Amino acid sequence: MRKVLIANRGEIAVRIIRTLKEMNMTSVAVYSTADKDALHVAIANEAYAIGGPRSIDSYLNIDAILTAAELSGADAIHPGYGFLAESVEFARRVEEAGFIFIGPTADMMEKMGNKSVARETMASVGVPVIPGSDGIIDSADDVKQIAKTHNYPLVIKAVSGGGGKGMRFAYSDKDVDKLYYDAKNEAKNAFNDDRLYVEKFIEKARHIEVQVIGDGKGDAVHLYERDCSIQRNNQKLLEEAPAAILSDEERKYITETTRDAMKKLKYRGAGTVEYLYVEEEKKFYFIEMNTRVQVEHTITEEVTDKDIIKAQIMVAYDGEIGFTQDDVVLNGHAIEARINAEDPMHNFRPSPGKIEHLHFGLGRNVRIDSHLYTGYSIPPYYDSMVAKLVVRDKDRASALAKLKLVIGETVIEPIKTNLDFQFFLLSHQKVIANDYDIKFIYEENIIDTE
Amino acid sequence: MRKVLIANRGEIAVRIIRTLKEMNMTSVAVYSTADKDALHVAIANEAYAIGGPRSIDSYLNIDAILTAAELSGADAIHPGYGFLAESVEFARRVEEAGFIFIGPTADMMEKMGNKSVARETMASVGVPVIPGSDGIIDSADDVKQIAKTHNYPLVIKAVSGGGGKGMRFAYSDKDVDKLYYDAKNEAKNAFNDDRLYVEKFIEKARHIEVQVIGDGKGDAVHLYERDCSIQRNNQKLLEEAPAAILSDEERKYITETTRDAMKKLKYRGAGTVEYLYVEEEKKFYFIEMNTRVQVEHTITEEVTDKDIIKAQIMVAYDGEIGFTQDDVVLNGHAIEARINAEDPMHNFRPSPGKIEHLHFGLGRNVRIDSHLYTGYSIPPYYDSMVAKLVVRDKDRASALAKLKLVIGETVIEPIKTNLDFQFFLLSHQKVIANDYDIKFIYEENIIDTE
Repeated sequence: MRKVLIANRGEIAVRIIRTLKEMNMTSVAVYSTADKDALHVAIANEAYAIGGPRSIDSYLNIDAILTAAELSGADAIHPGYGFLAESVEFARRVEEAGFIFIGPTADMMEKMGNKSVARETMASVGVPVIPGSDGIIDSADDVKQIAKTHNYPLVIKAVSGGGGKGMRFAYSDKDVDKLYYDAKNEAKNAFNDDRLYVEKFIEKARHIEVQVIGDGKGDAVHLYERDCSIQRNNQKLLEEAPAAILSDEERKYITETTRDAMKKLKYRGAGTVEYLYVEEEKKFYFIEMNTRVQVEHTITEEVTDKDIIKAQIMVAYDGEIGFTQDDVVLNGHAIEARINAEDPMHNFRPSPGKIEHLHFGLGRNVRIDSHLYTGYSIPPYYDSMVAKLVVRDKDRASALAKLKLVIGETVIEPIKTNLDFQFFLLSHQKVIANDYDIKFIYEENIIDTE
Repeated sequence: MRKVLIANRGEIAVRIIRTLKEMNMTSVAVYSTADKDALHVAIANEAYAIGGPRSIDSYLNIDAILTAAELSGADAIHPGYGFLAESVEFARRVEEAGFIFIGPTADMMEKMGNKSVARETMASVGVPVIPGSDGIIDSADDVKQIAKTHNYPLVIKAVSGGGGKGMRFAYSDKDVDKLYYDAKNEAKNAFNDDRLYVEKFIEKARHIEVQVIGDGKGDAVHLYERDCSIQRNNQKLLEEAPAAILSDEERKYITETTRDAMKKLKYRGAGTVEYLYVEEEKKFYFIEMNTRVQVEHTITEEVTDKDIIKAQIMVAYDGEIGFTQDDVVLNGHAIEARINAEDPMHNFRPSPGKIEHLHFGLGRNVRIDSHLYTGYSIPPYYDSMVAKLVVRDKDRASALAKLKLVIGETVIEPIKTNLDFQFFLLSHQKVIANDYDIKFIYEENIIDTE
């Protein structure tokens, strides 16, 4: 019997174990000492302790995980998301140790993990990228030249940059000379490297991402797209599938373009290609590719009636996706609310602790993915997400309303959660009108922190 | 805003309230004093106490319910299932008091509530009924005559019969004379009425039922069929949709025949036409029609992606079903396990009490309909069903396996439940092989009680 070790914890470990059981495969959990009472440990066929509570000692501990895989006799490892899911080193060592890595090749992960290589790679297979200087610029005039083609605003960036150092935003020709030299000096001082490049600065955009699965041999399917524009601190809060803002032509264009790119790259496994979508221009700009399953894969599963985890496993073992592009048909609209153990009243600080009262709103077309149970103590060491509330309905408006009802019935106490905050977001006029961008939470002054 | 009173409790009240909220309608709960902390009371927009814990004082108390409807300003009443859902008197009084009854007309309910009228009515609109004497028989020869057309075994029944009195089973011509006179004498003695009739005796059969919804004006749709053959004590335990035992032709025949009958009868609202299906003969025999929503409507909702409660409400208010026959497309296979608060080790005696630990197996394609919450005390006064665990998967085998996984993750303690018993049933070779009939639980000696 096939045996898979899940190098993860929380809801995604639970999620993966359930599909493994449905596929009649043996599941091997790993856990930190803080997670000995965790749900993923309880429901797995086997479980191995891999270290102390800190991630670095357990879920990031490659040696311990590989040892558990050896001991258990597993033949494959599923990394989930987060932790080691995008670690090239981990993927490489899994491969070297003779296990199947349920994900892309380490080489592909490395390629996509480097932003500039990823951008070049994607551009080479026809994916629209953020236009810019295609390399180093030599003068302020170069910036003005680029503006002629792509218009302001542009952002001048330091090649060695980070933390905003050496970065300047140009809104017209007249500022460019000064901004160019300021950026150059700042980069020189900060990084001892004054090389600069230029990109179009996209201020207002939606976050649209396309779910893909490739067989590693040149075939790939897309599972349509998601809109994940409602974010706080770069963390997605509400996700929807499909993206209601797109026309059918736009949907067809971006999903087919992404699929074609994956075929050309012979991409293996599940992945998500993320774009900024500028409504005024009706244009997409590649941001990055995530070479793993994502938190929000659930909503895609709901509207396509496909099991993405199963497809990952089938591709890894047998090189088969299990369905064709024609089998992927959209049905309705799904929305997910990420429920975090955090306190929105105090700058969303984490709120770990024991769950005394737990109750989920359930029923028709409601899906809950969670590792919580009554009596469970949320440890303070890991990500604060504790549940994903997912609904599907015939259209966006119905799904929004339904998700509010589910949240309204849900109780997670006495810890603090963002349940109320999510309810409030779902009630916001602009959310209902589908009129917002990725800066929504800040622009609307919904929270005055940070 | 439209306002609906739900004359029921438990999971079906919760189920109806959720759809009312999705339809942006106001929900009015009623509750007995035993149910003041019930979930349906907590989630309704309004709630009215209607009497003491005994059903007769509350959920069967027509005066109290109508008073609550008046006081609340409700314009419609949904009866759910059980309690007053098939009470002709209730439907009539609801109508007379000027409320919309969310169900068929009282006249239709009366017609279907009388077994012999229902049989005649259904036969008149082309539904296959159990063949027999079509009225009183005058001699043992009449029985032999019927056997020539319909074959043995036949059952001789007393017109005024009940409790098996005046009932005899005939397996061949040679026994008929004696059986006829025995039955006649027994009927005479028991009921002072020696009139007898004859029906074909169906020993081995499956319970197949067709879900229909009519608009009351001559249009009706079917939502395909369910197989509910696994029963104990006339209570369904496991239900499936569609019925995997049927061929596509049989499915088409029975669903279309049932739909046509509903159109001819100008049936209004949701209903279920129940049949015995004899596999060897490939024949269906009408048993009865339920003029209400059924417990197991959930599995039909899962495989058709339709909201049956919503359709009921739309028909009642506006005479619109909300979708056409062409919109009803089967997708996959759904199974429901009824979870009862009862003790299978002690003849399934009820096991009410406080829920200290509650945890449902959840995730993709899992639907839980329940009124339970941690800390809730199941009162001893009502039906013991406390949860419906519903899964959908691509085919029957996958759905069976998935349901076992959901049961395996579910905890309802410290009360006794039939969770383990259901797990055992789902693991039974004959259930897996889909090879059983309505006597399965007794014939297999699965339980030696009763």
